[in-house]
Amino acid sequence: MKEEYYFRNLSNRERAIFEGGISMGALYHQFVGTPVNIESCSSLEKAIEESILLQPAIIDVKVSLNKNLIKDACGSMNYTSLEGSMLEVTLTTNVGSDVISTCISYDEELEYPIMYIKE
Amino acid sequence: MKEEYYFRNLSNRERAIFEGGISMGALYHQFVGTPVNIESCSSLEKAIEESILLQPAIIDVKVSLNKNLIKDACGSMNYTSLEGSMLEVTLTTNVGSDVISTCISYDEELEYPIMYIKE
Amino acid sequence: MKEEYYFRNLSNRERAIFEGGISMGALYHQFVGTPVNIESCSSLEKAIEESILLQPAIIDVKVSLNKNLIKDACGSMNYTSLEGSMLEVTLTTNVGSDVISTCISYDEELEYPIMYIKE
Amino acid sequence: MKEEYYFRNLSNRERAIFEGGISMGALYHQFVGTPVNIESCSSLEKAIEESILLQPAIIDVKVSLNKNLIKDACGSMNYTSLEGSMLEVTLTTNVGSDVISTCISYDEELEYPIMYIKE
Repeated sequence: MKEEYYFRNLSNRERAIFEGGISMGALYHQFVGTPVNIESCSSLEKAIEESILLQPAIIDVKVSLNKNLIKDACGSMNYTSLEGSMLEVTLTTNVGSDVISTCISYDEELEYPIMYIKE
Repeated sequence: MKEEYYFRNLSNRERAIFEGGISMGALYHQFVGTPVNIESCSSLEKAIEESILLQPAIIDVKVSLNKNLIKDACGSMNYTSLEGSMLEVTLTTNVGSDVISTCISYDEELEYPIMYIKE
Repeated sequence: MKEEYYFRNLSNRERAIFEGGISMGALYHQFVGTPVNIESCSSLEKAIEESILLQPAIIDVKVSLNKNLIKDACGSMNYTSLEGSMLEVTLTTNVGSDVISTCISYDEELEYPIMYIKE
Repeated sequence: MKEEYYFRNLSNRERAIFEGGISMGALYHQFVGTPVNIESCSSLEKAIEESILLQPAIIDVKVSLNKNLIKDACGSMNYTSLEGSMLEVTLTTNVGSDVISTCISYDEELEYPIMYIKE
């Protein structure tokens, strides 16, 4: 079956939103748990960006790990496991002429790394 | 910030599609790689269902791992690692009065476990 | 090549230690990040136990997630992501007549979920 | 408790074997599932190497993903999910004067990506 056939019931905007959600959920659950410290941030950011860029409809990925949280979480072993609260990510999806930005950032009040669409 | 504030720019249908995408991407990348064989399928299916049911807007999760593929992939060690092609999942999301079914199934022609919305 | 051939350079005790390490590292990095709350603990514990029991030389797996930490980490969304500090696990490996217990528990002083062998 | 206290019951060689096992299990279950194609291999290899190098007793990590398998697994979507069979990794652990090489490679006969110690 052609890929497009699966999405005949979605508008371009809806599919751009759907693919943004998939890739943000994917990124979170693939990489949370990875050993990380300040020195290894940039190679991890780059690997996340390049891997998620392969997914359908993704045209841009910007990953900036929260260095302050990472530094604070490194105990006597000098590294920590990547947590959702450390993720600051913007994904851009494009379907037809619709372009959508999907974000994750930690909301202190909700105590939750929330994923949402930014216009 | 209130959770709803983040979604003021999405219709109920759009948010139901977004949350379905997030949870399907999450499920795939959290559980792919898990050691599995025929005997352990049912506990893994149940754990996937109960964990994903916790996520925003999810009201139902049905996971049926493909037992034939799992049996074929078990070599001399008698187990395999869960792969995306073994996932047959339907998630139901509900926002306002909108209810959306998000699915994953393996498409032989695309050689790809495709995630899509079923109406 | 026969499985045993790979381990001709290890004593039974060394292989039991090696397989305990592999499975504890596997368990941690497979399941950290999983959505969890008090209600879903028991299905997740069971799935972890049954999946890790499939791995080489493992004869017993006891997983007890730390319910107090899970409760504290659940913010307004009523669930959290599984963290390494919430894992209390004992794996038993057996090679020949050697039996080894591999553990993980959180050390407050080290601020680190440490994996070790208990005799 | 001091880190060394946990390992008073292991010889240096045993601990080097244990830490090699942990990190190989960690690496497998952290990164299997990651979206990958030929173009993204090198950033993924580097991120795996730098993250695993942070773990206890690890002094060297060499990751070479199997490009032929990755090319073959890329269907019409032009990427695939990283599988255990694609991993060719050597980790070096050092405890006291003991140095141990831990490897993973796919054994065709066993149909299994086997982890073992190479002297």
